[in-house]
Amino acid sequence: MPEFETLLVARGGRVTHVTLNRPEVRNAMSLAMVDELLAVLERAERDGSRAIVLRGAGGHFCSGGDVKDMGAAQARPGNGEDPIAGVNARFGHLCAAYAGTGLPVVAVLEGAVMGGGFGLACVADVAIARETALFRLPETGLGLVPAQIAPFLVERLGYSQAKRLAVTGGKIDAASALKLGLVHHVCDGEESCGATLSQVLAEIRKGAPNAIAATKQLIARARLEPASALVEDAARIFARAARSEEGAEGLTAFLEKRPAAWAREGEA
Amino acid sequence: MPEFETLLVARGGRVTHVTLNRPEVRNAMSLAMVDELLAVLERAERDGSRAIVLRGAGGHFCSGGDVKDMGAAQARPGNGEDPIAGVNARFGHLCAAYAGTGLPVVAVLEGAVMGGGFGLACVADVAIARETALFRLPETGLGLVPAQIAPFLVERLGYSQAKRLAVTGGKIDAASALKLGLVHHVCDGEESCGATLSQVLAEIRKGAPNAIAATKQLIARARLEPASALVEDAARIFARAARSEEGAEGLTAFLEKRPAAWAREGEA
Amino acid sequence: MPEFETLLVARGGRVTHVTLNRPEVRNAMSLAMVDELLAVLERAERDGSRAIVLRGAGGHFCSGGDVKDMGAAQARPGNGEDPIAGVNARFGHLCAAYAGTGLPVVAVLEGAVMGGGFGLACVADVAIARETALFRLPETGLGLVPAQIAPFLVERLGYSQAKRLAVTGGKIDAASALKLGLVHHVCDGEESCGATLSQVLAEIRKGAPNAIAATKQLIARARLEPASALVEDAARIFARAARSEEGAEGLTAFLEKRPAAWAREGEA
Repeated sequence: MPEFETLLVARGGRVTHVTLNRPEVRNAMSLAMVDELLAVLERAERDGSRAIVLRGAGGHFCSGGDVKDMGAAQARPGNGEDPIAGVNARFGHLCAAYAGTGLPVVAVLEGAVMGGGFGLACVADVAIARETALFRLPETGLGLVPAQIAPFLVERLGYSQAKRLAVTGGKIDAASALKLGLVHHVCDGEESCGATLSQVLAEIRKGAPNAIAATKQLIARARLEPASALVEDAARIFARAARSEEGAEGLTAFLEKRPAAWAREGEA
Repeated sequence: MPEFETLLVARGGRVTHVTLNRPEVRNAMSLAMVDELLAVLERAERDGSRAIVLRGAGGHFCSGGDVKDMGAAQARPGNGEDPIAGVNARFGHLCAAYAGTGLPVVAVLEGAVMGGGFGLACVADVAIARETALFRLPETGLGLVPAQIAPFLVERLGYSQAKRLAVTGGKIDAASALKLGLVHHVCDGEESCGATLSQVLAEIRKGAPNAIAATKQLIARARLEPASALVEDAARIFARAARSEEGAEGLTAFLEKRPAAWAREGEA
Repeated sequence: MPEFETLLVARGGRVTHVTLNRPEVRNAMSLAMVDELLAVLERAERDGSRAIVLRGAGGHFCSGGDVKDMGAAQARPGNGEDPIAGVNARFGHLCAAYAGTGLPVVAVLEGAVMGGGFGLACVADVAIARETALFRLPETGLGLVPAQIAPFLVERLGYSQAKRLAVTGGKIDAASALKLGLVHHVCDGEESCGATLSQVLAEIRKGAPNAIAATKQLIARARLEPASALVEDAARIFARAARSEEGAEGLTAFLEKRPAAWAREGEA
């Protein structure tokens, strides 16, 4: 019996591979999928995974929020809080969890990358796009607001491009996405895409897991704090890493001219 | 009798088209022009306009602040506050008003885009440049500071490129402006420029006006707040849109496979 | 007897030229070099220099922190504060000083631009890269955190690209660095590089020194404050510049159609 209803989850080489698996609706993000994506992230954070890879089944990444869930929420009586807001906030917490994890997150994007799918693409640390990827923010065209997505658009694209895409509907192809920094690699065909993913995972494997997590955390702070205010905290973080097991192994491996222990983990 | 002294204002297809109209001084921004640009924005916000388009008469966008106004301010006795600061702050309030409006703002840039004109270009949600556009920040060369412009340079280009251009005088052509994200489209000749503008306005027309305004507001907050702190507010904003008239029309139009009411407004 | 142990310092045309001069270790950043870089900046700020240019001796810019200093710090007893943190914080203060100076800072990058060298490259207002430049963040591969560098990565590249490079080790060449905005110019060979540097210094020379310093300061504030909140302060800064000696000279030179006094300084 599979553990997840809406996801295919596989683990290999200490990487958790997650496939959004509702191809009949181009992997629309249902509430069940939101919950399962949160659960799989928590597990990956605990089980020693070195990275988490997100992609979609059937040639599409994700076509956005599932309208059925919103319909159901609309019908449900809210006691105080609007149930639509509740459904929407859960998706927001999902994005925030993937944005905030110390694990490297890689997204492989193809076909429809819309709405919530666009948001997830913005959250990933590394985004690889197939040439088939088509990005779009359909919300305002439906009288809705890309509300949980907007902040991650800003994180990914900067304020100005985020605003431009929000005003114009954000319809762009893979090549434009690369130019904007929405994705970091574009590849032609599945094979080339697989090679790019392997390359990215090999680069990630070279970094010490705790050091990567600490760096991600510091970079998140630096988005909203002046660099000069971070000097003392950064120094403490550096010293802690230097005195950690990872720091000791890193130095020893360097002196012995061999790969560090973590770099060998998950090798084929 | 025309309503405006320094502007040509036309309305068509629910779009307010504004032309800076002092071609004899390459549309230098006088105090009168600042006041009229503020007035025309307020009117567009009230009269159901769906977008505001800024351009300049006579082959130039805007050559910057009008030196005569500054000369006059310098001569005037200040009672406490420096009158030069007063003149400058009014231009700053103009930029802030255009940056903060819920209406989509489109700029069509050609010829001189200097100083204050550079600032306005940075404020627009979508910037279309003719191949003739030449950007420049002449202030420091005159012993002055691009003071009201600097924050909008940062919003548009990010901190690092803003700093670089400020230090080196910011002389760039249309192609470089596109690479930097200072403009979003470059077009060769008036006809191609008109086609690009029509395309951008058609994209804007597909979005529900209140939804676009709410998205712009949220994106502005996301520039300076962490995404995770916005989840609950974003959810409320989403729910409000979903329960609004726009949300209802958007859903109905989607189910009936027809364009939403707002998408038909202003069609030729 | 040369004044500096780890640097070559020359002054010409009112520009302070600083060469990191430990070619035997690809100009690894020792504590002595940190102190001397701070000293040379303070002197340049006082001695009327109009810009400071950083480069490295022997075909490399800087290979990162000197491991010997860290080893010594590790051995030293800390009284309360970890001596490793102390060493690291000194490098952070160096970066913050160069990031915060009112003087234009130009970096000429070639060969290894690693770790702390990568950080310095991010701090410079203008970065010129030789085609030989190879950027890398080796820290996480050693179990360490690019702690003082991370904030300046964010300032230079924005949050998203900074995060991506930190997660993947940041190995990029000059062409990719140009696309990311990590550098502003790439040039092929020493001669072309010299010409680009001369061009950049000529652009800087056209700006009034105090006006440039005030602009840099305002831009730093605008990274973390909303533009609308800066209008009144910006107006006061503008008025102060307009009433300064620089403002008077700038206006007079403009009316007399001659270069301003500061633009002639340091001419050959």
